[in-house]
Amino acid sequence: MPQKPLGIALIGTGFMGKCHAMAWRNVATVFGGAHPRLEILADATDAQAAAFAAQFGFARATARWEDAATDPDVDIVSITAPNGMHRPMAEAALKAGKHVWLEKPMALTLDDARAMATLAATHSGQMTILGYNYLRSPAFQAARRMVSSGEIGKPMAFRGVYDEDYSADPLLPWSWRMTHEGGGLGALGDLGCHLVSLMTALMGPVSEITAQTQIVVANRPSPDGPKPVENEDSALALIRFASGAHGSFATSRVARGRKCRLQWEIHGTEGSIVFDQENMNELWVHRSGEAGFTRHLTGPEQPDFTAFCPAPGHNFGFNEQKVIEARDLLSAIAGGPACGPDFAQGLEIEKVIHAMAASHGAAIRIER
Amino acid sequence: MPQKPLGIALIGTGFMGKCHAMAWRNVATVFGGAHPRLEILADATDAQAAAFAAQFGFARATARWEDAATDPDVDIVSITAPNGMHRPMAEAALKAGKHVWLEKPMALTLDDARAMATLAATHSGQMTILGYNYLRSPAFQAARRMVSSGEIGKPMAFRGVYDEDYSADPLLPWSWRMTHEGGGLGALGDLGCHLVSLMTALMGPVSEITAQTQIVVANRPSPDGPKPVENEDSALALIRFASGAHGSFATSRVARGRKCRLQWEIHGTEGSIVFDQENMNELWVHRSGEAGFTRHLTGPEQPDFTAFCPAPGHNFGFNEQKVIEARDLLSAIAGGPACGPDFAQGLEIEKVIHAMAASHGAAIRIER
Amino acid sequence: MPQKPLGIALIGTGFMGKCHAMAWRNVATVFGGAHPRLEILADATDAQAAAFAAQFGFARATARWEDAATDPDVDIVSITAPNGMHRPMAEAALKAGKHVWLEKPMALTLDDARAMATLAATHSGQMTILGYNYLRSPAFQAARRMVSSGEIGKPMAFRGVYDEDYSADPLLPWSWRMTHEGGGLGALGDLGCHLVSLMTALMGPVSEITAQTQIVVANRPSPDGPKPVENEDSALALIRFASGAHGSFATSRVARGRKCRLQWEIHGTEGSIVFDQENMNELWVHRSGEAGFTRHLTGPEQPDFTAFCPAPGHNFGFNEQKVIEARDLLSAIAGGPACGPDFAQGLEIEKVIHAMAASHGAAIRIER
Amino acid sequence: MPQKPLGIALIGTGFMGKCHAMAWRNVATVFGGAHPRLEILADATDAQAAAFAAQFGFARATARWEDAATDPDVDIVSITAPNGMHRPMAEAALKAGKHVWLEKPMALTLDDARAMATLAATHSGQMTILGYNYLRSPAFQAARRMVSSGEIGKPMAFRGVYDEDYSADPLLPWSWRMTHEGGGLGALGDLGCHLVSLMTALMGPVSEITAQTQIVVANRPSPDGPKPVENEDSALALIRFASGAHGSFATSRVARGRKCRLQWEIHGTEGSIVFDQENMNELWVHRSGEAGFTRHLTGPEQPDFTAFCPAPGHNFGFNEQKVIEARDLLSAIAGGPACGPDFAQGLEIEKVIHAMAASHGAAIRIER
Repeated sequence: MPQKPLGIALIGTGFMGKCHAMAWRNVATVFGGAHPRLEILADATDAQAAAFAAQFGFARATARWEDAATDPDVDIVSITAPNGMHRPMAEAALKAGKHVWLEKPMALTLDDARAMATLAATHSGQMTILGYNYLRSPAFQAARRMVSSGEIGKPMAFRGVYDEDYSADPLLPWSWRMTHEGGGLGALGDLGCHLVSLMTALMGPVSEITAQTQIVVANRPSPDGPKPVENEDSALALIRFASGAHGSFATSRVARGRKCRLQWEIHGTEGSIVFDQENMNELWVHRSGEAGFTRHLTGPEQPDFTAFCPAPGHNFGFNEQKVIEARDLLSAIAGGPACGPDFAQGLEIEKVIHAMAASHGAAIRIER
Repeated sequence: MPQKPLGIALIGTGFMGKCHAMAWRNVATVFGGAHPRLEILADATDAQAAAFAAQFGFARATARWEDAATDPDVDIVSITAPNGMHRPMAEAALKAGKHVWLEKPMALTLDDARAMATLAATHSGQMTILGYNYLRSPAFQAARRMVSSGEIGKPMAFRGVYDEDYSADPLLPWSWRMTHEGGGLGALGDLGCHLVSLMTALMGPVSEITAQTQIVVANRPSPDGPKPVENEDSALALIRFASGAHGSFATSRVARGRKCRLQWEIHGTEGSIVFDQENMNELWVHRSGEAGFTRHLTGPEQPDFTAFCPAPGHNFGFNEQKVIEARDLLSAIAGGPACGPDFAQGLEIEKVIHAMAASHGAAIRIER
Repeated sequence: MPQKPLGIALIGTGFMGKCHAMAWRNVATVFGGAHPRLEILADATDAQAAAFAAQFGFARATARWEDAATDPDVDIVSITAPNGMHRPMAEAALKAGKHVWLEKPMALTLDDARAMATLAATHSGQMTILGYNYLRSPAFQAARRMVSSGEIGKPMAFRGVYDEDYSADPLLPWSWRMTHEGGGLGALGDLGCHLVSLMTALMGPVSEITAQTQIVVANRPSPDGPKPVENEDSALALIRFASGAHGSFATSRVARGRKCRLQWEIHGTEGSIVFDQENMNELWVHRSGEAGFTRHLTGPEQPDFTAFCPAPGHNFGFNEQKVIEARDLLSAIAGGPACGPDFAQGLEIEKVIHAMAASHGAAIRIER
Repeated sequence: MPQKPLGIALIGTGFMGKCHAMAWRNVATVFGGAHPRLEILADATDAQAAAFAAQFGFARATARWEDAATDPDVDIVSITAPNGMHRPMAEAALKAGKHVWLEKPMALTLDDARAMATLAATHSGQMTILGYNYLRSPAFQAARRMVSSGEIGKPMAFRGVYDEDYSADPLLPWSWRMTHEGGGLGALGDLGCHLVSLMTALMGPVSEITAQTQIVVANRPSPDGPKPVENEDSALALIRFASGAHGSFATSRVARGRKCRLQWEIHGTEGSIVFDQENMNELWVHRSGEAGFTRHLTGPEQPDFTAFCPAPGHNFGFNEQKVIEARDLLSAIAGGPACGPDFAQGLEIEKVIHAMAASHGAAIRIER
């Protein structure tokens, strides 16, 4: 962990903006090291920026994100603005010599993502990290260690879903987020990319996919009358991994009753692991010779949990994932292990979801 | 229900043979009507047949299945012999004018299944029914009513798996059941066909599939040294239904820790239903406007349960599904509603699993 | 198992009457041995008796239970009539030299139960068994073996509930079952006695209890206007066991949403076991050193299950418990291990529930 | 929420000390209002105090807790030191005119708690709040609203447990915490008091209890040989509430496999609610007329959750409960609704657990 305080800029103050702010405020309290300096916050207007800077404890405020991204007292730029702004913001920050913590998805288009990865490659001394929160949960980390240590043998099959129902209501009004130009991908860009991040962390790279997409609510109300939804409500895919394993993949934003059903299971030759983010403090593990699945509650056996709480079964929370993400970035900057997914790894995730969106039931090879 | 007692022949005395026997003994006790006459039981040897006839309460025994299938006092033939015998036995029984209750899968090959369906079509006064037990469970029937009545709106997506782990142990010896010639399909023929039966009952016919299969344990020990496994340990598929809905499908016989994980969910435009056969007395239902999923325990609201037990939450069992299956066959013979899947419907199931086995990630249109 | 067929009389044709009939019809099919002869069935009227004899497959019918209880061709009398008839019926059968299978609770009053146990003691060559179904489930038997073999160390604490909601509706009409004279105890007599049967099978005899009872719906509608409910809707107790362990105990017939919540857990010095009859095929076990609780699904490791089904996770059903109960009685008659609870053991159960009903929060010592 | 920043002193830096620190750092970020000033931190030595002040972001450090408790720039004193220090620390802070946030249990003895409540009553302008975290979770608050609004009718029965297994290992060394003088009560003081706090918040005041306690591991190893454990490992109680409802109560620190099993249920005349802190984001609710229990995941319907996260099913964490607790204290100081349990209410909790510890199965009336 860094001993020198690093300066932070935060762009955006919504769901994820607040989440980054909480993480920056508590990362050193939880994990030690120097407290980051909360230098500058950017939001849409001066008034909003000032109000949120006060609330989140940032020293300065601006309505010009460019100022935040390039501020001389800033070392790290947290980007939580709408997806369409990710590329220009990240590029400005990289060019100004900053480390970048960017929320997912990386960009609206695969071309944008590719350009960003290319630029990041030319700034190799600067860290980039994408906000794939769920990679950080103690239960997921424990699962990943189990898989990589061979505790369930060779992983042969993956089954994963990420379902929510935030778009299930057909009366939800049309928005620009539902267009290709404004919103990019649909469920794949919002939810599916998370599942890809977990799947590849557990199973290794994807070599081939076949997918189907579906738009369940074809038109949505707008002040100008019904307008068409362009990006997918739901997608299904079959996966071949480079390792020889295979998998199924599903994501939906219209799955009635699902709130954060990021659920996956792995079948290994010697055991199985099952996880559901709606109960993110439970990992279900079966190993050859055991009677059935055992519930592993989050606890001190999961190292990153201990810094938050020494008591097992005392639930770790969604927001706390972001504190670990911030710690990983600070550690990497201080010379610790590389953190990820960086922009290069993020591009691989983008390739997979864009291939899924483009597939129509025919196999598509994922170029690497 | 029939008022005239019908004569029963039972061929086979293993897992399913005993299950048929229990069903025949209790069907009238549970549902009323005339008790079937347990006429004749066929098994591999005279001694075995005699012993099981005594245990199951059949009047006569034989080591010649042909005698059982064609016995003049027999009205219905229960066929629970190995899959490779299904075609000759069913054909003999049909030709002798019998109704046929045949365990799944229908046959080893698609050609066999087609021939059987063709023959059955020429014996339209005789009932055929395939032993797709899980269609009969009270919870499944309740789900089917919910879907068909529109309680969850229009069904748009199906997700289903049927996983067990009976072949997970790599030291499990090689057997002829693992060859194409002796065993036909692998996980698809044993497990996947059940999932197809439920899926099509809920979602209607399949129009197109794309699938992948996998052999996890390539060779298995035999007295003559390792021998190759020819049929699939696991299969994954994407489905397009004629209705426009889509779905994902997975089955495995090597899924460590899974015992009878026949689990599916449907996302409708107004709600969702989730089921897992390992907890076959629970149906989880969410309808638009409700806070989350509600647990529906099997109880008197599910009509076929009441005949077994008037008290809710008093678990219905696996074997009792077969009593309902027997009742459905008897009712149909007595002029009640047609029961199924009959051989024509069973052929449609076979087409789907054989198409999955033949697919290699490319879309295959299911001809009907 | 007996090789000579035994003659059966069945008194009563309701929930439990049908359950006994199904058990008698299938016990030899499942477990081998001679099929019982279904000799005579008694019900309230000749017509009813005849109809049910036909449905259940009994040879003869009578409206006089005395004739069934004393029939010369009868060896075993299954008594499933209302609780108030238990004593005269059981006494008549015992005096006629019959074995008796009696549904619980043993009798309406403790005095009756005592008289019945005294009589049974003078007929020691005849078996008596009370219908405590839940003792027979494969999962319960597995739990009992775990406890007695020391797998969870020394059992120190028991927590048990049996909750249903069949009387929760305040508009449910008044009935004679809700009076002391007509119905005896309330929730304790109907549900609580089951919990005592399990608790003492697992933990050994009770030495002391303190209890509270509660009537939630004080008056219920009747054609003559509201009438008072006399017996308890709910009871709570603390237990001291002769072993030194302690326990808590709760039962309710007005627990909204509970259908067959017969749930208990044991804390041993080296592990814990948890069970809920609403998911009667799951046993949850934790042993020192394990990460958490492991789900043990009913399967071939539980011997009495295998006779019904060789496949793990294929649910055992409520009614099948009764088949095992019938088998246990037949085995005992044939000289196998004693079956229970017999009337002497049943009296101990009655003592506990009657002490609970009489307690008002003060400690009451259970005399043995 | 206060507009004027208040000065904070923190005494103690263990599990709860860090938890208070995180709460103070983030309360204004989450809920708005002025950020508290983190003035001074007290720990056992100067070096420790300095290190934790740096880590938690406090301006000053001291090894003298009296200085922190009476510091002129401090408005609120967070006391997270060992239980034996609660009384002198809280009294010093109150006498110095500070608001007090004190971790539970209130004190080692009932006399101490009584003295503290008496003193607090003479400082009525100063707020006191005890750290009963679990009262703050969004799911618990939702449950409390359901009960008080009559959504489940009149609450008639409560069943509650709080089990952990931190003392289950018999080789865990003896410590002064296991003595009456050093540790006060055992499981009741550590766990049971939490359950009382929830129980009385839901059901109203307790009028009478009967209880049993148990020491499972009688002696524990120490460098001087085995030493006796004096305080209870486990306690069970029956409860009568002033409302006429009744309840059962259990707590254990030796319940193998339980980590944070703070589980309770309420049976109302029109519905039931079930909760388990190990899955603290789930509330299970059944209302008359519904099919069964419905899972309510934490989400925006639970107001205090929204400030942390707008997305349903994105888990709230244990530590975040403390942020709400801090907010409640700040609101009360700023003239908002009273927060609690204050010392007067805390004394009522202490009366209950001390009565349980003193009970030996005989009814004890709780004086109010």
